[in-house]
Amino acid sequence: MKPYSEMSREELLALKAELDRQFEDAKGKGLKLDMSRGKPTPAQLDMGMGLMDALTSESDMKSENGLDTRNYGAMDGIPEAKHLMADVMGGVPAENVIVYGNASLSIMYDTVSRAMTHGVLGSTPWCKLEKVKFLCPAPGYDRHFAITQHFGIEMITIPMTPEGPDMDLVEKYVSEDETVKGIWCVPKYSNPQGYSYSDETVRRFAALKPAAKDFRIYWDNAYAVHDLYEDRRDEILEILSECEKAGNPDLVYEFASTSKISFSGAGIAAFASSKANIEEAKRSMTIQIIGHDKVNQLRHARYFKNLEGIRAHMRRHADIIRPKFEAVLAVLDKELGGLGIGEWTKPNGGYFISFDAMEGCAKAIVAKCREAGMVLTGAGATFPYGKDPKDSNIRIAPTYPTAEEMAEASDLFVLCVKLVSVEKLLEGQRH
Amino acid sequence: MKPYSEMSREELLALKAELDRQFEDAKGKGLKLDMSRGKPTPAQLDMGMGLMDALTSESDMKSENGLDTRNYGAMDGIPEAKHLMADVMGGVPAENVIVYGNASLSIMYDTVSRAMTHGVLGSTPWCKLEKVKFLCPAPGYDRHFAITQHFGIEMITIPMTPEGPDMDLVEKYVSEDETVKGIWCVPKYSNPQGYSYSDETVRRFAALKPAAKDFRIYWDNAYAVHDLYEDRRDEILEILSECEKAGNPDLVYEFASTSKISFSGAGIAAFASSKANIEEAKRSMTIQIIGHDKVNQLRHARYFKNLEGIRAHMRRHADIIRPKFEAVLAVLDKELGGLGIGEWTKPNGGYFISFDAMEGCAKAIVAKCREAGMVLTGAGATFPYGKDPKDSNIRIAPTYPTAEEMAEASDLFVLCVKLVSVEKLLEGQRH
Repeated sequence: MKPYSEMSREELLALKAELDRQFEDAKGKGLKLDMSRGKPTPAQLDMGMGLMDALTSESDMKSENGLDTRNYGAMDGIPEAKHLMADVMGGVPAENVIVYGNASLSIMYDTVSRAMTHGVLGSTPWCKLEKVKFLCPAPGYDRHFAITQHFGIEMITIPMTPEGPDMDLVEKYVSEDETVKGIWCVPKYSNPQGYSYSDETVRRFAALKPAAKDFRIYWDNAYAVHDLYEDRRDEILEILSECEKAGNPDLVYEFASTSKISFSGAGIAAFASSKANIEEAKRSMTIQIIGHDKVNQLRHARYFKNLEGIRAHMRRHADIIRPKFEAVLAVLDKELGGLGIGEWTKPNGGYFISFDAMEGCAKAIVAKCREAGMVLTGAGATFPYGKDPKDSNIRIAPTYPTAEEMAEASDLFVLCVKLVSVEKLLEGQRH
Repeated sequence: MKPYSEMSREELLALKAELDRQFEDAKGKGLKLDMSRGKPTPAQLDMGMGLMDALTSESDMKSENGLDTRNYGAMDGIPEAKHLMADVMGGVPAENVIVYGNASLSIMYDTVSRAMTHGVLGSTPWCKLEKVKFLCPAPGYDRHFAITQHFGIEMITIPMTPEGPDMDLVEKYVSEDETVKGIWCVPKYSNPQGYSYSDETVRRFAALKPAAKDFRIYWDNAYAVHDLYEDRRDEILEILSECEKAGNPDLVYEFASTSKISFSGAGIAAFASSKANIEEAKRSMTIQIIGHDKVNQLRHARYFKNLEGIRAHMRRHADIIRPKFEAVLAVLDKELGGLGIGEWTKPNGGYFISFDAMEGCAKAIVAKCREAGMVLTGAGATFPYGKDPKDSNIRIAPTYPTAEEMAEASDLFVLCVKLVSVEKLLEGQRH
């Protein structure tokens, strides 16, 4: 089929009639599909059930340094969990790691919250400043943007490229504007595009010369070991050591978790940073908590043992997830290829496919899908303030539905893309 | 033996010589004792090991409403965990409960932190105010005071009585001073005195008429089911319903956890409050976390089943702890009774005994104990800013040491009390 933009009004009208009919059929099916969030599917969670046997009533509950994990203490985590998470984060030193509870999102929230009330290594608390800004590479992760919005931090959109954020723009803002205090990054298999930052991008991050001494890179390494393919695994440079080398040891806060490794509801999360930043975090933690759940830390360390154990587990996850990604991509290729009404990413890992519709179509496509029983992440969610300036980006989360649902979902999705695109083009011709 | 204050200088000097000798002997023993924190002893933790078998790889991981506890979702906790914690808190409605991770301290911290950055139900964020004050019944819990100090909140000491805080003073401050935004309370088996608030005290709390509409009672019900005796169990009124009855539904935030029921490092914690307060907490939580560890919530609910399950478990704890309390109290009675150099509480539950030495002696007693190898909570820690105006209060935490260690510890403690008291009296005579 030829590109829609080259179709005559008559052709478009005929096409629309056909698509309308198909859409009515689809609606009639009474579908109930949810592709809104990056949730593991039950089969993935089942693969982790061995975790439940890793500790029993007969187990030795002491960590490798002899500490009783059941009792108070070890605020920053047990050594074996630190090692495990240090390796997940690409081999940062274990002494630069704090292991938390089950949510890296909470660590990020806390980190921003602490900066609001107490500043960063002696800087003025942000709540005392007139203006605080964050750079937000977009499309990006809606929950990152929600944290900064919650604290009244002004968000500046930075365009994403397949190499990472537009670094010319990042460097300009960071070096010239003292009110720019942070940037949200998902450096590997970015949410939602699945882009991984190039070595040059990471090095330019490490070499930033911030105008604000309390500027930090919020490096959410959420998909560090979430590869879909054995033979095309993205690798990113380890940012802590790059910052160290560049003479900027305190520049980065790194976050990770096992939420999409073990259980989304019951994993362990970690924070890695320089000695000074870790010490500052601990000073607040002393007030905030006596210690996170060390029994769950021990459970994870005993079950996965080491990075190789995690990688083996993730290969089994990939065997489930990969066919779903490939099914979506196959339908997109087959049904939308060459039509000029959408572009999409083909990531080597992570949890999402990013789809860019024709300008001004994303909201309408998501609404159409919902009308026929499929929930997608709200259009705009991948941009600061939920506003996609082009109303173009849609995040597709293929992991949770079954393979069968995924097929139905993909068919419905492309149908809605076509229908909305045709309507858009017809509308354009009217003017 | 007669009261020390009635002894002549010669008698005191002779006594001091004898006590000095005993102290040198004690030092020679090379003791290593820790009575500094309210930590469960390993035997208590062993009693909870059945928890580790409550979920296995064969378990149905769905909560009673059909939710997969392993996955994302259920930000406010699973229903069975809400019910369990609602009952622990004296029968508050389960829909007024949010179940968190393993630390009630973190909930308290978050609650204050949120008030700092976002205010309370629409009030001005506290970080924008010139002055914020909290009332701090003292002696009290050092970690409460640490939170308010961390946020630069001015703390006002309120004297404690066996019925609870001095309510005349509380009412005066709360009704007259708009900068007073909260009060820290441990209503049952208070830390460190083991006092439980009388019905009148609870009712006066519920009937407070705060000058500040963002004033809240921070009700840390940490020892709700921590009774030492079957036949003398303190009961306190349920504060949420009392506030409701008094027309003050939003007045209280209640906190509890299983840290001293299941595992101190791996329990579950809860927050209970009015509908409006719960909704406000959830609005922040939406930004902060996708959900706390629901697998551990399920583990607790399956293992304990209900309040009676928890009470049965706590009776077994009491069988271990009670003899330690009684051993300390017996030594205090036998060795210090009638000497006029100290007073102490005899609680029916909780984790502490509170000791009041002669004025100006607490720091010296704690230092003496440390010199001979015993760590106590730092003198002053039970007061705001770590400053006990009378330098008199010492918190004794009898739970962690073994019975044998407890005997040694008590002997050493009374010896140090005697020695420091004699020195104080001799010093007084010199002036």
